[in-house]
Amino acid sequence: MKFDLVTKDPASKARAGVVTTDHGAIQTPIFMPVGTVGTVKGVHQRELKQEINPDIILGNTYHLYLRPQLDVLEQAGGLHKFMNWDRPILTDSGGYQVYSLSANRKIKEEGVKFKSHIDGSYHFFSPESVMEIQRTIGADIIMAFDECTPYPCDYRYAKRSMHMTHRWLDRCISHLDKLPYKYGYSQAFFPIVQGSTYTDLRKESAEYIANAGAVGNAIGGLSVGEPAEEMYAMTDVVCSILPEDKPRYLMGVGTPINILENIALGVDMFDCVMPTRNARNGMLFTANGTINIKNKKWEADFSPIDEMGITFVDTEYSKAYLRHLFAANEFLGKQIATIHNLGFYMWLVRQAREHIIAGDFYAWKEKMVKQMSQRL
Amino acid sequence: MKFDLVTKDPASKARAGVVTTDHGAIQTPIFMPVGTVGTVKGVHQRELKQEINPDIILGNTYHLYLRPQLDVLEQAGGLHKFMNWDRPILTDSGGYQVYSLSANRKIKEEGVKFKSHIDGSYHFFSPESVMEIQRTIGADIIMAFDECTPYPCDYRYAKRSMHMTHRWLDRCISHLDKLPYKYGYSQAFFPIVQGSTYTDLRKESAEYIANAGAVGNAIGGLSVGEPAEEMYAMTDVVCSILPEDKPRYLMGVGTPINILENIALGVDMFDCVMPTRNARNGMLFTANGTINIKNKKWEADFSPIDEMGITFVDTEYSKAYLRHLFAANEFLGKQIATIHNLGFYMWLVRQAREHIIAGDFYAWKEKMVKQMSQRL
Repeated sequence: MKFDLVTKDPASKARAGVVTTDHGAIQTPIFMPVGTVGTVKGVHQRELKQEINPDIILGNTYHLYLRPQLDVLEQAGGLHKFMNWDRPILTDSGGYQVYSLSANRKIKEEGVKFKSHIDGSYHFFSPESVMEIQRTIGADIIMAFDECTPYPCDYRYAKRSMHMTHRWLDRCISHLDKLPYKYGYSQAFFPIVQGSTYTDLRKESAEYIANAGAVGNAIGGLSVGEPAEEMYAMTDVVCSILPEDKPRYLMGVGTPINILENIALGVDMFDCVMPTRNARNGMLFTANGTINIKNKKWEADFSPIDEMGITFVDTEYSKAYLRHLFAANEFLGKQIATIHNLGFYMWLVRQAREHIIAGDFYAWKEKMVKQMSQRL
Repeated sequence: MKFDLVTKDPASKARAGVVTTDHGAIQTPIFMPVGTVGTVKGVHQRELKQEINPDIILGNTYHLYLRPQLDVLEQAGGLHKFMNWDRPILTDSGGYQVYSLSANRKIKEEGVKFKSHIDGSYHFFSPESVMEIQRTIGADIIMAFDECTPYPCDYRYAKRSMHMTHRWLDRCISHLDKLPYKYGYSQAFFPIVQGSTYTDLRKESAEYIANAGAVGNAIGGLSVGEPAEEMYAMTDVVCSILPEDKPRYLMGVGTPINILENIALGVDMFDCVMPTRNARNGMLFTANGTINIKNKKWEADFSPIDEMGITFVDTEYSKAYLRHLFAANEFLGKQIATIHNLGFYMWLVRQAREHIIAGDFYAWKEKMVKQMSQRL
């Protein structure tokens, strides 16, 4: 994997770049749609590629490990072939999902014992096993195994956890060295900065991670309930330490506004379930603010879902029709809203890139943040 | 509406024809995908048109009356505009849905009082109100209000019900005369033959319906649990009486085999929830038999869903992937299976038409019936 920094915004820390993988190039800043168990929920791969057009999508190690399981993925020749997606894929390490299991997992130095949310069976993830699992899934970018601390988090716990995440990183790296690529293409490895919302811990962690010399770096443990201002403060600290010539990936973030603000702080890559999950609940993101399409006010509004027409659904269907589909609990409603929201997220990061290259990102960002704060 | 009989099969009663409506032509025999409340469940209108390509779809009066309700449909300018579908639509009369409510409806000479399955509210359908409702929905073909008798059905009940359906037909026709078209295009009206599984009643009903002189005729009250042989016997009797120069629509039928057998008896139009509903349960229809994609046997079968490749899903996804989506309860599985099944149904009726025109329908039908009886 290779990262080329194309340009930097004069008025902020925003950057435009290109990440090159064996499955193609990723124009940054980028948003990665979440394809949990080998599907971006409710969207055909063809639609995803042609209509939404992301350069890269994300898969979840925890979910893929449980279903379809590794033997099937290995026989398929990896996740790309299994799901018929020929562009880059990134897999998380399962750390976040395991953290989300709260009562059903036990974290120790050796690794994490957890109970499957599907059948209650017990499993064990260690830095070593997660590297092996991600080799088998076969994503282009794979992530270190970390502990994602909750918010708020006691300082002592956050510090101890961060140090364990660092030790786990060393174990990931030394184990990966023994594991050849499985499918003939390379996999880039990104370590993850932790440290909760404590500036000194974030600095220490960012320095540790930067020293690992990986081809790209990630920021974890944010977007877990902390105020946006705390998130931005942590991103700012961490981005000032992480090397400029490597892509920076902020995990699990966020709203359209969060994304623009973090781009302004020097983040290059994002993923979040928000556009897809909120879509399934009838919430649409637009350049002029959010829409709750379930509201009765849209019942007889026959105007297009979004006049901007970023994807075909925006102009082929009316607000009244989409509201009807949600009222009647028809899955097509969720499909339409998902395509709309992902289309909008992709438009947003593409626009951000264009404005960074044009040199007017900051003013555009300020305007967009104001516009997108509205509720329609 | 106009019907042109193109050709008749020499070895059976199968026919190929063209029904012409203000929203375009329908090549018969045809299968009409069911779009219950203004959506063929899980399929974008664009996919429906481009990938499945039916000449006509069906909407359900009962469901559309309850949601989005008539005022919304009227403000939208009818169902075509509301759902963005510019090809022909047929609406049933609600008779079948009301019959399905069993405990929650009371049938009288005046009409049917029923309880909404959504909120328990009471409503009343009469032959007159159903004609008004279908004017507002705005389908190209609208259906008479009938009583669909169950199977088995007591002879006296079936006879009394049939006579009431005939009286209701007269009321439909005289009321329709007073109702102008609402949206500038014409609507054809089809009466419905009833009579349960009694040959004498079916004959009497077919004669009554034929005498109504409608532009097309339908056969109702079948596919309600009777053995296939009884269904075919009734279709045969009825088709021998219904005029040859009008299209014949067998309501609610059926399996791919049922469709071919009824085409051989002179039926031109079909609708059924089977390809869509069974798809959502993981059952696929193919030219070589049915597949239960949930079976463990497909877990590591990376061959295409269907080598025939009628629609894009058949070759873009593997059986193992589709099985995984069902195992993980991912909606994309239902979407893929729905497109596959509808694509197959459309292929089947198109092939039937080609073979009727080529003059070798009967032999092809016999071969297909044998092939499609298998379980893969």
